[in-house]
Amino acid sequence: MPLRNQTVAVIGAGDYIGAEIAKKFAAEGFSLFVGRRNGDKLAPLVKEIEAAGGRAFARTLDARKEEEVTSFLGDADKHAPLEVCVFNIGANVNFPLLETTERVFRKVWEMACYSGFLAGREAARLMVPRGRGSIFFTGATASLRGGVGYAAFASAKFGLRAVAQSAARELWPKNIHVAHLIIDSGVNTAWVRERIREREGQAALDNLDPDRLMPPSAVAEAYWQLYRQPQSAWVFEQEIRPFGEKW
Amino acid sequence: MPLRNQTVAVIGAGDYIGAEIAKKFAAEGFSLFVGRRNGDKLAPLVKEIEAAGGRAFARTLDARKEEEVTSFLGDADKHAPLEVCVFNIGANVNFPLLETTERVFRKVWEMACYSGFLAGREAARLMVPRGRGSIFFTGATASLRGGVGYAAFASAKFGLRAVAQSAARELWPKNIHVAHLIIDSGVNTAWVRERIREREGQAALDNLDPDRLMPPSAVAEAYWQLYRQPQSAWVFEQEIRPFGEKW
Amino acid sequence: MPLRNQTVAVIGAGDYIGAEIAKKFAAEGFSLFVGRRNGDKLAPLVKEIEAAGGRAFARTLDARKEEEVTSFLGDADKHAPLEVCVFNIGANVNFPLLETTERVFRKVWEMACYSGFLAGREAARLMVPRGRGSIFFTGATASLRGGVGYAAFASAKFGLRAVAQSAARELWPKNIHVAHLIIDSGVNTAWVRERIREREGQAALDNLDPDRLMPPSAVAEAYWQLYRQPQSAWVFEQEIRPFGEKW
Amino acid sequence: MPLRNQTVAVIGAGDYIGAEIAKKFAAEGFSLFVGRRNGDKLAPLVKEIEAAGGRAFARTLDARKEEEVTSFLGDADKHAPLEVCVFNIGANVNFPLLETTERVFRKVWEMACYSGFLAGREAARLMVPRGRGSIFFTGATASLRGGVGYAAFASAKFGLRAVAQSAARELWPKNIHVAHLIIDSGVNTAWVRERIREREGQAALDNLDPDRLMPPSAVAEAYWQLYRQPQSAWVFEQEIRPFGEKW
Repeated sequence: MPLRNQTVAVIGAGDYIGAEIAKKFAAEGFSLFVGRRNGDKLAPLVKEIEAAGGRAFARTLDARKEEEVTSFLGDADKHAPLEVCVFNIGANVNFPLLETTERVFRKVWEMACYSGFLAGREAARLMVPRGRGSIFFTGATASLRGGVGYAAFASAKFGLRAVAQSAARELWPKNIHVAHLIIDSGVNTAWVRERIREREGQAALDNLDPDRLMPPSAVAEAYWQLYRQPQSAWVFEQEIRPFGEKW
Repeated sequence: MPLRNQTVAVIGAGDYIGAEIAKKFAAEGFSLFVGRRNGDKLAPLVKEIEAAGGRAFARTLDARKEEEVTSFLGDADKHAPLEVCVFNIGANVNFPLLETTERVFRKVWEMACYSGFLAGREAARLMVPRGRGSIFFTGATASLRGGVGYAAFASAKFGLRAVAQSAARELWPKNIHVAHLIIDSGVNTAWVRERIREREGQAALDNLDPDRLMPPSAVAEAYWQLYRQPQSAWVFEQEIRPFGEKW
Repeated sequence: MPLRNQTVAVIGAGDYIGAEIAKKFAAEGFSLFVGRRNGDKLAPLVKEIEAAGGRAFARTLDARKEEEVTSFLGDADKHAPLEVCVFNIGANVNFPLLETTERVFRKVWEMACYSGFLAGREAARLMVPRGRGSIFFTGATASLRGGVGYAAFASAKFGLRAVAQSAARELWPKNIHVAHLIIDSGVNTAWVRERIREREGQAALDNLDPDRLMPPSAVAEAYWQLYRQPQSAWVFEQEIRPFGEKW
Repeated sequence: MPLRNQTVAVIGAGDYIGAEIAKKFAAEGFSLFVGRRNGDKLAPLVKEIEAAGGRAFARTLDARKEEEVTSFLGDADKHAPLEVCVFNIGANVNFPLLETTERVFRKVWEMACYSGFLAGREAARLMVPRGRGSIFFTGATASLRGGVGYAAFASAKFGLRAVAQSAARELWPKNIHVAHLIIDSGVNTAWVRERIREREGQAALDNLDPDRLMPPSAVAEAYWQLYRQPQSAWVFEQEIRPFGEKW
C-alpha cells in the first residue's frame, strides 16, 4: 500500500462506523487521526490499522470543546495536510416530548450538532487556504423526519444538516467538498442489536434478517465513493439504505 | 367583543409580528399573555389592546430560561385555560461560516430553537390533561434551506422545525394542534427595511415595491386561520409569501 | 344569502369532495358550474344548491378533451366572471408495476394530470386579462410519494403538482392565486369505505374510528380558506390530515 | 479488457450523455445495446466502442411504442442477460403556460415519462426472474421544481421520478436496484452551449467558466458508481452538480 502525505480526521471514531471509515481510508494510504471521548479505547483500532500497514493516531477528544477540536485538527494538519474530515458523532435517544429534560435536549445538541459545527468550521479554516479538501457529516433518518420521541435527536440532526448545507454553499466554490450522508437504516452494531433485543425480544434478534441492518463497512465505502467524486459532479447529500429496507 | 375565558400566550412579542398576532387574538376575545426580554417595552401594545376592549398582560421573559418559561405559561394558564401558545422568537443573523463564533452559534440556537422546545413542552404540559390547545411555531425560509452565511440561523431554524414535527406527531392524537408557519418573505418591519437600506441603499428603500414585503397583519391572519381549522383537516406546515415574491 | 356576480367552476364534481366544494362556494353566493363525465348525475347536487338559495349549472364534461374544457370554462365565464377554478379529478388505482398496462398508465395520466393542465391553462386564459382569480388543484399523498403499486397514479399526481408549481410561479405575479391542496388521508366517501371493507373486512368498516377519515366538507372548508387568503400572504401548497392520522 | 456476458441497454443514446454512459459501461466489459430515434446516427458511437475493444449494437427505437421497447430490451437480453437499463430521454422545452399547446404537453410526457415507464417495466420483467439488475433513470432540476415556463417538462420529469420511486419500492426487495440521478446543471453538450449563445450571446459562450457545465463523462461516472454500490447500502436518488454551481 503506497502511503500518502495526507491525513484524514475522524471525529467520533468510537463506534463501528467511525472505525470502519478510519480503516477504509487508512487502507487507501492516508494517515488517520481518530478522536473519541476516551482515547484509550481506540488502541485496538490503531493496532489493527498498523498491522495492515497503515498509520493511525488516537486522541482523547471532547468535540464539544472548541479548543479541543481546534487542536485535534491542527495536529492532524501538522502531521500532513488535512484532506478529509469526517464528523460522525451521534446521540440517538428517544424520549416523549414531556419527558425530554432541558439537560437532555441541550446535551444531544452539543454532541450531534454544535460539535459538528465546530469540526466543520475548523476543518474549513485549514482547507480553504489550500483550496482543497472534503468535509463529510453523518446524518440519519432523523435528519429529515422528526418522529415520535425524537424532539431532541431530530432537532440536533436537522440542525447539523443545516450546517452542512450552509457550509456546502459557501465552500464548494472554494473546492472544498462538503457532503451529508444520511443512513436510513439501523447499522449492524452491538448497540443497535441490543436495542432490537430490548424492544422485540431475544428471538427477534436471533432470527434477524441479515438484510435489515447495514454493515458499517458499507458506510465506509459510501464515504470513499463520495471522496472520489470528480469536482465536476459532486453530490451534497445521499441517503443509503439496504435493499430490503422499507421507506 | 365578547370576551372568552381562554388565554393566548405569545413568546417573542417584541417585534411587529408578535404584536400583530397578539392584537388579532385579543380582538377575537382571548386574554393575551405577551412576553419579551424587556417587558416594559410592551406597554404600548397592552395599551392598544385595552383601548380596543381587549385584555393583555405583559411580562419580562428570558425564554432561554426554563423556569421563566414555566412560570410565564403557568401564570397565563392560571388566569384562564391556555388555548394557544405562539413561539415567535427569531435570531436572524448572517455570518460567513469562518466568522461564526461558537458564542454566536450557541446564542442563536438558544434563542430560536432551545427556547422553542421549552415553550412547546411547557405548553403541552398544560394542554394535554385537558385534551385541547394549539401550539404554533414561526419559521422562516431558513427553516428549509441553509443558505450562504446562515450556518447559525438555519441550524437553529431547522432544529425548531424538528421540534415542531416531533411535537405534532406526539400531540395531534391528543387533540393538540401543533403547526409550523414558514414565512418565506421579508416582513414589513423597521428592522427589515433597515436591512434593505443597508444592502441596497436609500433609493431602493424609497422605491420599494409594496408587494415585496409582507405586512405583519398577514402573519397574524394566517395564525388565526390555522387556529380555526377543524380537527378533521389540520395543517402541520404552511409556507406563506406575497404574490409578487420569487420562489 | 347575497348572490355574487362571479362563477366558480368545479371540474370533477362527481364525487363527494367536488360536491361539497360546490355547495360551500354556492353558499357563499357564487354561481357554480359543475362538470363531470355524466352530467345527468349532477341533478341532485344542483337541486340541493338551488334549494338552499344558490345557483348551479351542471355540464357533461370529458375533461381530457381540450375543446370541452375550453367551452365549459368559457360558458362559466360568460355567465359571470370566472373567479375560481377547482380541478378535482382523481384516478386512484393500485397495480403492481409489472401489471400496469400501458393503457392504464396513459388513462390515469389523462384523467389526473393532462386534464388538470388543460383546466389550469384555460382558466388562466380567462383570468389573466382581468388580473384576478384562483386556480386550485386537488392533490393526494401520492403527489409526494411513489408508493408500492402506485407507479401510474403517483406519476400522474406528481405531474399535476409540477403543473401547479409552474403555473403558480408564472401566474402569482399576475395576481392569480394558484394553489395545490394535498389531502393526506382517506376521505369519507362511499368509495373509500368500500376499499376499507375489501381490504380489512366488514368488521373493520363497522368499527371504523371516526377520526380516521376526513369528511368531504373539511376539504371544502380548506379551499374556502385558501380562497380568502390576502394576496400578501398566499399559500401555494398545504397538506391537510385529520388529527388522528399517522404521518 | 475482459468482456462480460452481460448487456447494458441505453435508451436515449443519442446525446452526449447517453453516448458517454455507453462508452463507460462498454469499457468495463459489458455488451451495449444503444437505441435512439434514428439508429443510423449511432454508427460513430458503435465504431468508437469497437475500436476500444468493446461491443455495441445500435438500434432504431421509438421508445414511446410499447412493442419497440419490449423488442429492444428483449434482443439485448437474448444477446446476454440484461444487467443494466439506463433511461436517458429528455425533452427539455420551455414555454409559458399559455403558449403550451396540448400537443407539446402530451409529446413531452410521452418522451420523458411514458417511455420511461415502459422501459422500467420491461426491464423489470426480464430482471425479476433472475433476481438481479439495475434500472437507472436520468432526472433534471425540473424533476424537483416546476419553474417558470416548465409546465410541460417539469410535469413529465416529476412523473418519471414517481415511476422511479414506485419501481424502487417494489423492486429493491427483489434485488433490482432502481435509482434516479438528478443532474442539477447544464451538461456540456452542443445543444446546451447553443442555448447559452442564444440567451446570453456569443461572448458569454466564448468566456464560459469551465466549471459551469458538467462534462457528460461525469454523468457516466456517476452511473458507474451507482452500479457498483453494494446492496447493503443502495442510493435511490442523488443530485449531482459541479462545484461552482449555485443551488
